[in-house]
Amino acid sequence: MRVSKYLLSTQKETPANAEVISHQLMLRAGMIRRNASGLYSYLPTGLRVLRKVEAIVREEMDKAGACEILMPMVQPGDLWVETGRWDKFGPELLRFTDRNNRDFVLGPTHEEVITDLVRKEVSSYKQLPLNLYQIQTKFRDEVRPRFGVMRSREFLMKDAYSFHLDQQTLDDTYNAMYQAYSNIFTRMGLEFRPVLADTGSIGGSVSHEFHVLANSGEDLIAYSTGSDYAANIEKAESPMPTETRQAATEEMRKVDTPDAKTIEELVEQFGLDIKKTAKTLIVRGCTDEAPLVAVVVRGDHELNEVKADKLELVAAPLEFATEGEIRDALGAGCGSLGPVGLNIPVYIDHAVAVMSDFVVGANEDDKHFFGVNWERDLPLAQAADIRNVVEGETTPDGQGTYAFARGIEVGHIFQLGTNYSAAMNATVLDENGKAQTLIMGCYGVGVSRIVAAAIEQNHDDRGIIWPAAIAPFQVGILPMNMHKSHRVTEVAEKLYADLAAAGIDVLFDDRKERPGVMFADMELVGIPHTIVIGDRNIDAGVFEYKNRRTGEKQEIPFDQIVDFIKGNI
Amino acid sequence: MRVSKYLLSTQKETPANAEVISHQLMLRAGMIRRNASGLYSYLPTGLRVLRKVEAIVREEMDKAGACEILMPMVQPGDLWVETGRWDKFGPELLRFTDRNNRDFVLGPTHEEVITDLVRKEVSSYKQLPLNLYQIQTKFRDEVRPRFGVMRSREFLMKDAYSFHLDQQTLDDTYNAMYQAYSNIFTRMGLEFRPVLADTGSIGGSVSHEFHVLANSGEDLIAYSTGSDYAANIEKAESPMPTETRQAATEEMRKVDTPDAKTIEELVEQFGLDIKKTAKTLIVRGCTDEAPLVAVVVRGDHELNEVKADKLELVAAPLEFATEGEIRDALGAGCGSLGPVGLNIPVYIDHAVAVMSDFVVGANEDDKHFFGVNWERDLPLAQAADIRNVVEGETTPDGQGTYAFARGIEVGHIFQLGTNYSAAMNATVLDENGKAQTLIMGCYGVGVSRIVAAAIEQNHDDRGIIWPAAIAPFQVGILPMNMHKSHRVTEVAEKLYADLAAAGIDVLFDDRKERPGVMFADMELVGIPHTIVIGDRNIDAGVFEYKNRRTGEKQEIPFDQIVDFIKGNI
Repeated sequence: MRVSKYLLSTQKETPANAEVISHQLMLRAGMIRRNASGLYSYLPTGLRVLRKVEAIVREEMDKAGACEILMPMVQPGDLWVETGRWDKFGPELLRFTDRNNRDFVLGPTHEEVITDLVRKEVSSYKQLPLNLYQIQTKFRDEVRPRFGVMRSREFLMKDAYSFHLDQQTLDDTYNAMYQAYSNIFTRMGLEFRPVLADTGSIGGSVSHEFHVLANSGEDLIAYSTGSDYAANIEKAESPMPTETRQAATEEMRKVDTPDAKTIEELVEQFGLDIKKTAKTLIVRGCTDEAPLVAVVVRGDHELNEVKADKLELVAAPLEFATEGEIRDALGAGCGSLGPVGLNIPVYIDHAVAVMSDFVVGANEDDKHFFGVNWERDLPLAQAADIRNVVEGETTPDGQGTYAFARGIEVGHIFQLGTNYSAAMNATVLDENGKAQTLIMGCYGVGVSRIVAAAIEQNHDDRGIIWPAAIAPFQVGILPMNMHKSHRVTEVAEKLYADLAAAGIDVLFDDRKERPGVMFADMELVGIPHTIVIGDRNIDAGVFEYKNRRTGEKQEIPFDQIVDFIKGNI
Repeated sequence: MRVSKYLLSTQKETPANAEVISHQLMLRAGMIRRNASGLYSYLPTGLRVLRKVEAIVREEMDKAGACEILMPMVQPGDLWVETGRWDKFGPELLRFTDRNNRDFVLGPTHEEVITDLVRKEVSSYKQLPLNLYQIQTKFRDEVRPRFGVMRSREFLMKDAYSFHLDQQTLDDTYNAMYQAYSNIFTRMGLEFRPVLADTGSIGGSVSHEFHVLANSGEDLIAYSTGSDYAANIEKAESPMPTETRQAATEEMRKVDTPDAKTIEELVEQFGLDIKKTAKTLIVRGCTDEAPLVAVVVRGDHELNEVKADKLELVAAPLEFATEGEIRDALGAGCGSLGPVGLNIPVYIDHAVAVMSDFVVGANEDDKHFFGVNWERDLPLAQAADIRNVVEGETTPDGQGTYAFARGIEVGHIFQLGTNYSAAMNATVLDENGKAQTLIMGCYGVGVSRIVAAAIEQNHDDRGIIWPAAIAPFQVGILPMNMHKSHRVTEVAEKLYADLAAAGIDVLFDDRKERPGVMFADMELVGIPHTIVIGDRNIDAGVFEYKNRRTGEKQEIPFDQIVDFIKGNI
């Protein structure tokens, strides 16, 4: 590609309103432009990367035996009514009516449409298992679209859905997808980790997320220092306490704590061990009998909302009660709550169940109970794992300790079970001619998000450093003063033709620009290999080669350049 | 691809509610499924064809120097307000509001978005000319979606937009696109014709449509028997009359014509030459002074609405007055109208201007004037070409006569001029540093429509006959009783592996199905080449080859099959 015929559109200035580096660099490198909040156009450079990502995803899906289809972006609303998601899905689901006043949505996902398709097309066990996928545009009306294409409203996704009559073939397909995803991110040259994940609102049982590791990642991953175990922080299992509860040594007493609104203040003012304190949080219940529920974690621990909302009496998704509701129901503010004498259901974390002589709020403003002990001062409440793990704790497999990393979620695989098929009555006849509800899996890759995630992981202060497989161009040709030197033109044109003939994607900077501008653009856009041609080089018969990632420079004789490049891409 | 792992989904029965053959065959061959009115999912076979069409379009656009980008499907409404199309575009433009009550549309076309992009990205004449394209999903809320993907609401389109500072480079790009389109349809093996077209509501001057010729086509094409001239019937120029007006030989007289409501009845009842009659039609005017306007064509001619709505006093798009309005204004019904003594503006076709002693309505129910002559009985009205051409008439280049063919519009190229750029103030600085409004061209290909059009042109009573370049698979392998014969399995598997290794797309029917079912499916899906393997063949060491298009059968020795197929695809 000649820059003169191309829309390079690089920018020197860091754009305002772009918070993360990938968003800044995608704007500066001329990859995307904003059309409206959360809506972007891909300029040629951005689209080239997007298409390379798409092609790798497609190849690996095909290799794994999945069949590509294409469903519409506009979906009939009645299918969403069938599964109940018409009501349950929030305002992210963009609903509208057509000219005949029929309800439609812009598809944020395609479980309904695919289940409808399969219940019509597949009638016999002989057609199973079946794994169908598409690479297609989705829309989610995000409350706060941000970070460019990392969290945009319109985005490109690969979504696959598999159908089964038994758990064994679902497991097989799930494992094949796990492997395909690993291949995809490996081929793209990205550092990534598959992690155990919560299945969340989409439903289902087993689930893994695939994260591209990057310090700027929104997600916290807890991984084992000694094994392959890794989980999203929401899902990472806390170890059971190894200690047992000690006998009480103190009397319970009510203490005035007027200046201690937080655990930290309490600990500081009274010289306490934070591990001897517990915090009590009030969340909404899911029954009329218990509109409020208390959850208690140790002072130095954090409540894990995703774990807590699975408790029997707690509403999902988890919602905290307001200060007003708490005061009305319990007679005290948030800073002075505790489980002693509380007239609402109480759940405690396993780590709290083994505490003795501990400190909690007295359900009376500016008062705490000190020296509290289970079974003497209050009944032992039901215990569960409701906290986040802490770095250094033992992982569930016992083979290491937890360490944390930040990641960007770019893939997610689920075992859905019969959540959608049962609601939509999607059955097939088994070998005995009996109707069986289909068992489903679903498997997503955020195609456009990968582009941003790759940049978060691969950049420096001069711009993007593309991994070879997804670089918009593999080679950049920079002729010096081409418009003044006939010799430079001739050599540059020949090199361009030779590389193109070898099937290499080349960006040929044929503009009348200063060398500094040309170098800066190549580095900003992140072309892995650049070749400089000036009169000096022609005299010496060598090209000046530079590697974007290592910064290493080399002189390559004219007749070896094509082979050299081929050997390095 | 093994059929056992594929969603073949063929159907024997001709589906109800599918009017045209391509729609029937796309359903029967398992290419598409309907999700709602005008919304379709592509099953694997349909998508394979769609992707092949897309790839050819992309390659030819790239070769012609266009740059691929990708704009969002959801577009901000304010851009449409800027060009005035927010109001002008009918209900085909699907409008909706997002969660923040901002106006958006589902893009039926992208002139607004691209012009907005280019006015921001391109500032200098040095960056021009520029030709940007995308292959992207569009939505038009059609009043009557029909014929499957031929006229669906959501569809895939290639749309390109070029930007210029002078007519010369616009002409060059326009010609390059004309050539690219010719290459595209030639490579796809389709019989097609570029025809002169009206620019219609999109605006602009020069325009060509590309039609795939098919008897079922919705469009009528008038082409020259002696040259390359061809035009959409709307645009085909009528020849000027070669005869001159004869002197009057009859007196004008009012005749009772109680049973003659139509020209045909009048001609029959009074033994007239239809070429001596004229019909007068009343359409809406575009000024307050003349809310109604009369247009007159010869009795044997048809009014051309697209030509007529370009007349100075006529409203565009053309609308006929109602019977009630006509009676109120002119005192007579539609069957008795004529230009004599009419108190509204009158336009006549050129062929009417040379008539003498002719018959027209008397603007009095059940009466006609006979023996009417211009300039004696009424002033000669303003003449223009406002009729459809007739087969056998001389074409404008004088090198042949008109013949008609039916076509399906699959491409359309336009010179838009400054219609959009002026409204959106899209300018760049010229060589003298002066701001100049951009001149634009636009170039569309109906990617999904091509799939249907190809079928309309290529099918027989057994199914589709794909041209090689866009066939979902090039070869079908049909092993006979594979599940009983180990030898057949072995030979079939080897053939499958050999063809795949040669880079050939193969559909391998590994189902336990009767041979009749397998043959019928291959013919229905339209695979160009099929290879049968049975025990008999193995004994003889030859495959049974059959060509879908010619029906020709051949025996090919085992060791020659790959070369034979390679030589025939």
